[in-house]
Amino acid sequence: MLEELKQVVYEANMELPAKGLITYTWGNVSGIDRETGLFVIKPSGVPYEELKPEDMVVMDLQGNQIEGELNPSSDTPTHLELYKAYENLGGIVHTHSPWATSWAQAARSIPCYGTTHADYFYGEIPCARSLTEEEIEEAYETNTGKVIIETFQENDPIYVPGVLCANHGPFTWGKDAMEAVHNAVVLEEVAKMAYRTEQLQNRTIGAPGYLQDKHFFRKHGENAYYGQGK
Amino acid sequence: MLEELKQVVYEANMELPAKGLITYTWGNVSGIDRETGLFVIKPSGVPYEELKPEDMVVMDLQGNQIEGELNPSSDTPTHLELYKAYENLGGIVHTHSPWATSWAQAARSIPCYGTTHADYFYGEIPCARSLTEEEIEEAYETNTGKVIIETFQENDPIYVPGVLCANHGPFTWGKDAMEAVHNAVVLEEVAKMAYRTEQLQNRTIGAPGYLQDKHFFRKHGENAYYGQGK
Amino acid sequence: MLEELKQVVYEANMELPAKGLITYTWGNVSGIDRETGLFVIKPSGVPYEELKPEDMVVMDLQGNQIEGELNPSSDTPTHLELYKAYENLGGIVHTHSPWATSWAQAARSIPCYGTTHADYFYGEIPCARSLTEEEIEEAYETNTGKVIIETFQENDPIYVPGVLCANHGPFTWGKDAMEAVHNAVVLEEVAKMAYRTEQLQNRTIGAPGYLQDKHFFRKHGENAYYGQGK
Amino acid sequence: MLEELKQVVYEANMELPAKGLITYTWGNVSGIDRETGLFVIKPSGVPYEELKPEDMVVMDLQGNQIEGELNPSSDTPTHLELYKAYENLGGIVHTHSPWATSWAQAARSIPCYGTTHADYFYGEIPCARSLTEEEIEEAYETNTGKVIIETFQENDPIYVPGVLCANHGPFTWGKDAMEAVHNAVVLEEVAKMAYRTEQLQNRTIGAPGYLQDKHFFRKHGENAYYGQGK
Repeated sequence: MLEELKQVVYEANMELPAKGLITYTWGNVSGIDRETGLFVIKPSGVPYEELKPEDMVVMDLQGNQIEGELNPSSDTPTHLELYKAYENLGGIVHTHSPWATSWAQAARSIPCYGTTHADYFYGEIPCARSLTEEEIEEAYETNTGKVIIETFQENDPIYVPGVLCANHGPFTWGKDAMEAVHNAVVLEEVAKMAYRTEQLQNRTIGAPGYLQDKHFFRKHGENAYYGQGK
Repeated sequence: MLEELKQVVYEANMELPAKGLITYTWGNVSGIDRETGLFVIKPSGVPYEELKPEDMVVMDLQGNQIEGELNPSSDTPTHLELYKAYENLGGIVHTHSPWATSWAQAARSIPCYGTTHADYFYGEIPCARSLTEEEIEEAYETNTGKVIIETFQENDPIYVPGVLCANHGPFTWGKDAMEAVHNAVVLEEVAKMAYRTEQLQNRTIGAPGYLQDKHFFRKHGENAYYGQGK
Repeated sequence: MLEELKQVVYEANMELPAKGLITYTWGNVSGIDRETGLFVIKPSGVPYEELKPEDMVVMDLQGNQIEGELNPSSDTPTHLELYKAYENLGGIVHTHSPWATSWAQAARSIPCYGTTHADYFYGEIPCARSLTEEEIEEAYETNTGKVIIETFQENDPIYVPGVLCANHGPFTWGKDAMEAVHNAVVLEEVAKMAYRTEQLQNRTIGAPGYLQDKHFFRKHGENAYYGQGK
Repeated sequence: MLEELKQVVYEANMELPAKGLITYTWGNVSGIDRETGLFVIKPSGVPYEELKPEDMVVMDLQGNQIEGELNPSSDTPTHLELYKAYENLGGIVHTHSPWATSWAQAARSIPCYGTTHADYFYGEIPCARSLTEEEIEEAYETNTGKVIIETFQENDPIYVPGVLCANHGPFTWGKDAMEAVHNAVVLEEVAKMAYRTEQLQNRTIGAPGYLQDKHFFRKHGENAYYGQGK
C-alpha cells in the first residue's frame, strides 16, 4: 500500500545523511497522501544505512498505525498535528541539524539578514516557545505540534516553511517530502550565515575595546587623568 | 556557436560545487567573447549534476538571448552591466558562498588583514550599498550591476576582482571564467580568515572581563569598597 | 585470549577516525570482560591505518600487562581507575576531539541547553578540576582517573556518561566499547551546539553596542549632553 | 642527485592538500641533506595535482639553484635563513592554513591552553613581529627568516617547532620534512581549539549581559531607581 509514497519518503529520509543534516538517527521525514488521508513516516531508531523503503510506516490522521512492523518515529504525533492543521502540507522533516538547533537552543527566531533567507522564508523563521511542564507531562510530542500551530497564528506556514522549537530543534515542511528536505537544507545554511552575520555586526556596532578602555580608564583607577584632579 | 567558450563556462560552473562554494543552484558563471561581443552564461535553476555544456545560453550585450533553449540565469542583467562597464573583464561569478555572504549580510567591506588577501585583492574588498526600494522595483538585477559600478568609481576592478552586495552575496571576476572562479574561492577563504581574525582581535584589544568586573563592582553594588564610604 | 573482545575494541577504535574525532593517534578505546576482570586497550602510538585486532593489549585490574607485544596506551591507568571504581562500565574512550577539548581547555562544564544533550546526558557534563603539581608528579594518569571519580561523587556516571578533564580533553564511557564511542560522538556534537548557543545568547542578553555607545557617550566625552551642564 | 630526498620532500608536499592545510598552491615544504649542505624544495606555483618528485628543486645554502628546471618556491630565502641559523632543522613547511593564519593576521601568539598544545610545543607559539617597510623593500623573504630568528632569541626552535609571521601565516619545522608537516597539522588543530577556548572563556570571565544591564540601567536613564531620588 502506498508503495510509491514509501519510496519517495525513503529517498527523502536518505537525503538527511547525504546532506550532512544528521548524526546517527536524529531525524525523520514523512509524506502524506491527501486522497486517502494516510501518511508515511520513518520507523523509530533504525540506522540510515539499514533503512529500506518497505520499512516505512503508514499512519492515519487519527494516529493509528495502518501498516508496518516497526514502530513509527517517536515524533509522529507532531507530524500528525501539523498535517491536520495545514491541508497544504505534503511533507514534514524534523532534524537536530547543528546550526538550526543552536538557534533553537538559544530560543531565538532567525532574523532575515539577506536574500538567501528571503528566497525561501518570508520574514523571520520563528522560534516556538518552550512547552510548560504540564504540556510536557501530558503529551509531549502532540503539544510540540500544538505550540508550533500557536506560533503560526499570524503567519502562513506556506510562506514560512519551517520553525524552531525552543531548546529542541527545527521542523520544516513543503508540498511534498523532498521539498521539506530541501527547506531543511536551506534552513541550516541560513542559520549558519545569520550566526556569522551577527558576530560580524557585533564588531561593527560596538565601540572598539581600546576606545572603551581609553574612556573607562582615563576616568577610573590609578592612572586616571580626566577632570581637575582633587 | 562559441562551442569552445561554452565548454570553458560549463567547466567553470562545475568548479562551484567542486570547491564547496554553493548549495543547490545558488550560483552562476559567465564568460565573454570580446570579438563577437557575445557572452555565455549558465541557464537558470538547472541542478549542477544535470548540467551539460550545450545547455549554456548565449547572450549579446543588448540583453538579447542569441542561442539556447533554456532561460539564462536570473542574474544575467548584472553580468551584462559589468561586461559593458569594464572591457577587460572576461568572466564573472556570482555565488552565495557562506563566509562571503555573511560579510555581505553584515553590510561590511572586508579589511585587508594579511598577505593571503593582499596576494589577490588590493585594499579592502568593498561592500556595495543596498539598493533603494525604487531601484529594486524598477530593475533589480540591472541596478545591482549599476550599484557595483558606483562602488568602483574610485577603485580599479582589475586590482580588486570582487565585491560584496549588501544583504545579498559576492560577485567576482577575472580575465576569463576560470580565473573568476579562482577569485571566488580566494574570496571565501579570505572572508573566513578575516572573520576569525576579528574575533581574536576582539579579545586582544578589549579589557578582560574580570578586570571589567573588578572595576565596575568595586564602585557599584553591595560589595563596593572604592572611595571613602559615606 | 579474549579474541572476540579484541575484535570489538579494535572496531571501536577504528570508529574514532571514521567519525572525525581524532587527529593522528590522539585517542584510545578500551573494553572490559567482567568475568575474567581483564580489559583490552589500544596500543600506544600506533597509527590507525596500521592497527590490527591482534595488536590490542590485554591488562588486568592490578595494572599488569597480560598479553600483547606492544605497550598499552599511556592513558591505561586512567581507564583502570574508572573500571575499578564503576562496575557497570564496559567500555571507555579518550579523545582530543576539538569541540569537547575546547570546553575542557576553558575549564568549563557544558550546560544542558537542549534535548540533544538531554537525550544522552542528565544535567551538565562536568569538567573535572585540574590536577595539582603534586598529583601530576606523583602519578599523572592514575590521578586523572581519581579526579574524575572525585567529580562524580554526587553524580551517577551511568546517567552522565562522560566528563571533561580541565586543560586536557574528554573521557566517555558506556556499557561496552561501541556505546562509549557513540557517547564520544554525541559529546562532540553537543559541545559544538552549546558553544554556538552561547554565542547567540551573548547577543540576545547583552545590550546592543549602539545602545551602550549612546548611553556611555551622552554622559562622557566631548559631545556629552546628559545632565544639566555645568 | 638526492633522488631519495626529492621523493621524501615530494611526499611531504603532497600531505599538505591531503590534510586540508592549503588552498590552491599556498604552501611549500623543503628538506635538507646536512652532509652535502643542499636542500630540496617545491617549485613555485605548480598545482599539487601536477607535481612530480623530479620537479623538486635543489638549492645550496648560498642560495644558488643547483638542479631543477623550474623556479624554486618564492619563500626559498626564508627556508634558507632558518637552515643556516639552526643546524638541527631537517625540514621546513610554510602554509596559509586558515586557523593558524587567523592568529597570524591578529598578530597574536597562541597561548598554551591545554595538553594537545603541550604535547608538541613548549609554551606559547610565538608571533613574529611585522617587517618594517624598509625590511620588506630590501629583501622580503630573507628578512622574514631573520625576523623569525629574532623571535627565537630566547626560545629553542626544537622545543617550539613553529612560528606565526604577523599578517602572513605559519612556518613549522622538524627533524625532517615529514615531521615538519606533522607539526603544521598539529599547529592548525591547536590554533582552532585555542580560538574556541577563548570564545568560551570570554563568556565565563565576563559578567553576563543581563547583569551588566541591570547594574547600568538601575543607575542610568529613565527608569533608574538606584540611590535616594532627588
